[in-house]
Amino acid sequence: MKLKNSNGDTSKAIYDRAVGVLTGGVSRNTIFRKPHPYYVASANGSYITDIDGTERLDFANNMASLIHGHSHPAIVQAVTDQLKKGSAFTMGTEVEVTFAEHLTSRSPMFEKIRFMNSGTEAVMTMIKASRAYTGKFKLAKAEGAYHGTYDYAEISQTANPSNWGDINKPNAVPVVQHTPKGITDDVVIFPFNDIERTIHILDQNADQIACVLIDPVPHRIGLFPATNEFIEAIYNWTRKNNAILAFDEVVSYRVTYAGAQCTYAVKPDLTALGKIIGGGFPIGALAGKSEIMEVLDPRGTFLKHPHSGTFSANPISTTAGRVAMELFDEQAVLNLNALAMTARKQIEESIKIADVPVCITGAGSMFKLHFREKAPNTYREAYQNKETREIVTDILDYLFLKENIIMINTLACMFSTTLTQSNIDRLSEALLRGLKLLKPKIDLLK
Amino acid sequence: MKLKNSNGDTSKAIYDRAVGVLTGGVSRNTIFRKPHPYYVASANGSYITDIDGTERLDFANNMASLIHGHSHPAIVQAVTDQLKKGSAFTMGTEVEVTFAEHLTSRSPMFEKIRFMNSGTEAVMTMIKASRAYTGKFKLAKAEGAYHGTYDYAEISQTANPSNWGDINKPNAVPVVQHTPKGITDDVVIFPFNDIERTIHILDQNADQIACVLIDPVPHRIGLFPATNEFIEAIYNWTRKNNAILAFDEVVSYRVTYAGAQCTYAVKPDLTALGKIIGGGFPIGALAGKSEIMEVLDPRGTFLKHPHSGTFSANPISTTAGRVAMELFDEQAVLNLNALAMTARKQIEESIKIADVPVCITGAGSMFKLHFREKAPNTYREAYQNKETREIVTDILDYLFLKENIIMINTLACMFSTTLTQSNIDRLSEALLRGLKLLKPKIDLLK
Repeated sequence: MKLKNSNGDTSKAIYDRAVGVLTGGVSRNTIFRKPHPYYVASANGSYITDIDGTERLDFANNMASLIHGHSHPAIVQAVTDQLKKGSAFTMGTEVEVTFAEHLTSRSPMFEKIRFMNSGTEAVMTMIKASRAYTGKFKLAKAEGAYHGTYDYAEISQTANPSNWGDINKPNAVPVVQHTPKGITDDVVIFPFNDIERTIHILDQNADQIACVLIDPVPHRIGLFPATNEFIEAIYNWTRKNNAILAFDEVVSYRVTYAGAQCTYAVKPDLTALGKIIGGGFPIGALAGKSEIMEVLDPRGTFLKHPHSGTFSANPISTTAGRVAMELFDEQAVLNLNALAMTARKQIEESIKIADVPVCITGAGSMFKLHFREKAPNTYREAYQNKETREIVTDILDYLFLKENIIMINTLACMFSTTLTQSNIDRLSEALLRGLKLLKPKIDLLK
Repeated sequence: MKLKNSNGDTSKAIYDRAVGVLTGGVSRNTIFRKPHPYYVASANGSYITDIDGTERLDFANNMASLIHGHSHPAIVQAVTDQLKKGSAFTMGTEVEVTFAEHLTSRSPMFEKIRFMNSGTEAVMTMIKASRAYTGKFKLAKAEGAYHGTYDYAEISQTANPSNWGDINKPNAVPVVQHTPKGITDDVVIFPFNDIERTIHILDQNADQIACVLIDPVPHRIGLFPATNEFIEAIYNWTRKNNAILAFDEVVSYRVTYAGAQCTYAVKPDLTALGKIIGGGFPIGALAGKSEIMEVLDPRGTFLKHPHSGTFSANPISTTAGRVAMELFDEQAVLNLNALAMTARKQIEESIKIADVPVCITGAGSMFKLHFREKAPNTYREAYQNKETREIVTDILDYLFLKENIIMINTLACMFSTTLTQSNIDRLSEALLRGLKLLKPKIDLLK
């Protein structure tokens, strides 16, 4: 297939205006690329056409948030209908109830739910609710895991060899400069999937931990699942120590019909949701045990955790989310996961033919390429040094500019139901060409 | 005008389902009312029709977020067009640039801007950016001021006589139970509009304050503006002490074409925005001096404040916001403020006729009723005790159920451009009847 590929002149011109009014020319660092970002004219299904007329095949799906690709007709129709009836009120709408009924019916641990505006807000509320319920202050989280921009939740997300410290007691490394010491003192960092060290670290803070926060398939750590044994060990620890087991499934919820949590024998107390449950619109949600969620209940005589949000549960996000999630039924999840597995196999074939030390990790409809022979098992193993990051940028640029393919800037794909076998073929063939081209540079990493 | 008024049976039935799946049956405590919230079927301009067919006149406008009322045709059209082109991408869109150009052109202090998903996120980022820029930890904020749900920003928002302490050194009172001591220790509380005490309190923390956070027309304190002298005193203090003057204009931006800040001789360094700038869709933004905003710039060799957001600057919120704000031009602002002033005068007339100790405060297109003879000047004066809150609920219920009028649950009105003189007449007449009815109870407050 020959696609039109322009020089991006219009995007460059828009970016030249953007730097005059937006810091660094962007509102999301994710969209920034050198020498300039590209701007979208329109998008449909798995295709995005930029403002210069170049059409690209999209495997990023707005950082895993579009489970049905772009402009899905059923979502567009439902939102268009709702738009005429209003987008936000100081009153309720039935769709927030219908949608809550749908989500709670999918996952047995979602006894109650509350909607908010972003994954960041959902994780923040989950942590605050855990403190309110347990009466304790500290948050335990995995080194390298991304959980949004609440400063407690982002500690050590970008830890690197110069500051991460001893693996037996990883440092609490702020993401933002001059994060208060009061915050870093209250965050306990453990190494993902390392049972012995993690339990030892948790034990040292046993009386103070309000919740252990875990993304069961952490994208930024390296996009490989938590082991059953790891989740069970943490679960058992939380039972013994009156702490909340808090899952961040903002990204990983797509892994099965009921979230990644349903792949484990033990279950979280609370779960933060976002991304795909908004059907392409801003959303976040906190779900979990009624007894804990009760701290948010405005009907009580003593409300432990007052919480509000101007656009929380707005009927646009909940309408789009309801349609999207109802379409993402058990069969759709299975089909999508099967397609992603096919893609992984084809890409593994490309890697073999290109004869490069590259491997793939993932779960469900998500996977990620690593520039190493063997799949990483820990954040520190998966950590990309400067040389590796340069090659990641090279291959992303090659795919974007030469093959008209969009991957997430971590070299990950987050599939949508609009992808087809021929899209997968195009991806694996493009990657084969790209890996061959970059083989001399990749081989130097060994 | 005789309006249909049903018994709310369908709303009750929906709420009965809601309590099974949503904590307390709601996602926003704001929409909760006893015995049950009411659910919207559709809304247009200044009218909301509930699911039982009752049409109400809306002076709440989703907590001040709808500057052009509901389903404004130009916004509906622009969003409907954008919907077909997609709602979110891992790439830029021109509208985020066009909208940024518009907002920076309105307010001279908005040298650069960055969009996010909510006012809560905007205030959180403003505080984090202030720390990153100044190298200091502490936040100073006014007792009683609401700034979203980031825990630093919400300290002392609901302080009451049992816990607020000495006015010379107000306590830092958490909103959520078991907020970490690390947070309360880093928040300095001052009494709004009280220069002498505020400067004394700031002086005691001079070396540690990263930013002084001020809503210039704080709704929750009592909806009266900060005095020129107060803002100037704080501005001068921040200049002397290397601190950021941070305005929260999420609500108050509507007060003039360029925000409440343009009514003062001195200007803030940073401003948090939200509500009306989203045109009815989830949004937040941080705007301010280039030099400070630079901490967010992804192009630098050392990025002090990495920041992202899946739905930040999404083309739905920015499209709706751009249309809404362009329509809210200088003349529209003047007209709306004049209409609100007329309403205040008519309501003052109603108060006089009803012969009750009630007064009104406000600014621009917002005002609030207080059950006291003389306008309050401080949070502690405006604070409503239990008896007062009961009457507030009585009058809100009377207006909602008997007069089909919606006010904000603090007894405030936030006007939209769709309101007319006859709507104002209806409001002041309804309030006259309500105040007369409740006079015996109100008189007992004296």
